[in-house]
Amino acid sequence: MNAEKKLIERIANAIPFRAWSPHHAALRLGIGDDAAVLRPPRHAEWVLTCDAFLENVHFLLRVHTPEAVGYKSLARATSDLAAMGAAPRFFLLSLALPARLTRRWLDQFLAGMASAARKFQLALVGGDTAEHATLAICITVIGEVAPGRAVTRAGARPGDLICVSGTLGAAQLGLELVLRALAGKRRWKPLLPPHLYPELRLALGQWLSRRRMASAMIDTSDGLSTDLARICAASGVGARLWASRIPCVRVPAALRGRGFDPLELALHGGEDYELLFTVPRRLSKNLPSFHQGVPLTRIGEITREKKIQIVRPDGGARPLLPRGWVHFSTK
Amino acid sequence: MNAEKKLIERIANAIPFRAWSPHHAALRLGIGDDAAVLRPPRHAEWVLTCDAFLENVHFLLRVHTPEAVGYKSLARATSDLAAMGAAPRFFLLSLALPARLTRRWLDQFLAGMASAARKFQLALVGGDTAEHATLAICITVIGEVAPGRAVTRAGARPGDLICVSGTLGAAQLGLELVLRALAGKRRWKPLLPPHLYPELRLALGQWLSRRRMASAMIDTSDGLSTDLARICAASGVGARLWASRIPCVRVPAALRGRGFDPLELALHGGEDYELLFTVPRRLSKNLPSFHQGVPLTRIGEITREKKIQIVRPDGGARPLLPRGWVHFSTK
Repeated sequence: MNAEKKLIERIANAIPFRAWSPHHAALRLGIGDDAAVLRPPRHAEWVLTCDAFLENVHFLLRVHTPEAVGYKSLARATSDLAAMGAAPRFFLLSLALPARLTRRWLDQFLAGMASAARKFQLALVGGDTAEHATLAICITVIGEVAPGRAVTRAGARPGDLICVSGTLGAAQLGLELVLRALAGKRRWKPLLPPHLYPELRLALGQWLSRRRMASAMIDTSDGLSTDLARICAASGVGARLWASRIPCVRVPAALRGRGFDPLELALHGGEDYELLFTVPRRLSKNLPSFHQGVPLTRIGEITREKKIQIVRPDGGARPLLPRGWVHFSTK
Repeated sequence: MNAEKKLIERIANAIPFRAWSPHHAALRLGIGDDAAVLRPPRHAEWVLTCDAFLENVHFLLRVHTPEAVGYKSLARATSDLAAMGAAPRFFLLSLALPARLTRRWLDQFLAGMASAARKFQLALVGGDTAEHATLAICITVIGEVAPGRAVTRAGARPGDLICVSGTLGAAQLGLELVLRALAGKRRWKPLLPPHLYPELRLALGQWLSRRRMASAMIDTSDGLSTDLARICAASGVGARLWASRIPCVRVPAALRGRGFDPLELALHGGEDYELLFTVPRRLSKNLPSFHQGVPLTRIGEITREKKIQIVRPDGGARPLLPRGWVHFSTK
């Protein structure tokens, strides 16, 4: 048996989907042939997306553990399903890596990915492996949603309330600690999981879709300022954010002196994978303050005027420019 | 509008699927949101696969034109659908590239990919872009097949005939000419298209599936010796190939002196993307010699004994080792 085939068997064994996927009846043929064969569910639509997770772009080998890379690469792609209100079902993994990483590193990477797959109830159904100078992971996820119930970015209307789940800025704070080599200090360890092992809002996304509560939705993968701008552009509207209402990450006093500003982290920090959604005002009384323990906060409103402003507690407003993560930016 | 968004719009405009896809009724939401939404067809199964196409592994920027990289990256993934007997429907593109390639190179790459998409009737429904030091393309394709009709690698039985479409070794010959810098010579130009712009056997794959003619099938992406070994391993059988029957590429006399051996090219050369399939003997009389102009050749038979042998015209036999393209090989 050649090395490539052994590698594929190791991947398939490390992520044994039948153990946790209740959806394997839909799987006609899994990993190991030219392609996977799925029997689509009746009375449902499929939601598909793919996401690359690249060394030196999305993670750094010298600071990120293989478990975290495995977990997060799958979480990142799956968060897009949450943002549509879809339930995760299957995924494909394309894995390009240097030969030296095919031993212990790969086992730990697969363990991290398997824990994400179990948590999100995703079955690995196929993929591709290649030898490559740097690590390049590409993940395709397939989810399911009731017909017509996928929540797009384009449905926000003037007057809608802008809401967000959880807290914002925590992932960016964790990333900064890692990059500034502060992550090793025991006192800051509790601040790392939002960066390394983000929670997804899958149940919330599906609940908002089922209840037809959200008129538009996106996950905060690139930062509130950037992701809100995407909703506004797709919907042809503007927005006004209330600075004092934004659920900012709590920054310990000892770190504030090092330039960590909670509002800046919350506005522009990426990778929180919270849900940012708009709710028509007449439905907003039905929106609870918590969903399964996750706080839902009203942070602003959609406006007819197509600009995005942030309002201070004293009533003064300033334009909010998208300063989150963008590829090919000229800065 | 930021650079990343402009890039996504350029991609969507360059591959305007509605112009050629007869399947857009199934597409509820295309490129530009968090994910694509598709309405699966009734009475059909879906076939999915993903394939990476990487700089310095699958292509070289200094010798391969952007058009050829665009065409071939999509063709390579789509060939796996042909090998299942599926009809291509949709694809997702994950594109990671250096900023310097986002101008003219990208336009030409997208033109090559668009010509493949038109030819294969594939609609681009989503994807991902990222800035990266080297080019990394990952393509997910989705095809359709009648329930239970996908042709796997695992159905070959002792006595089945082994058949192959087209000629073998032509892509490897083209690759060698490119690598030995002979590709610029006008007399060898006609030998390059099988390497740069491979034809796929989509109609043949669907015909074999519909007629239930093939008991097992694979595309010859990594070379006859390697791909036949995969069918044999999956089916738990062996094979005997008749050397004199193998439809080898015609090597011009002037090149034979340079070490190009037609049988070696045909046995171990990769990327022909022909279909290698097995046919139960009782059905073989129904197999025509040509399908839509493409020759179909009987090149051997499946054996109960689990080894793969090649038989010379004089009757002598030798083991055929898989010497096609394999990642993570120790050579």
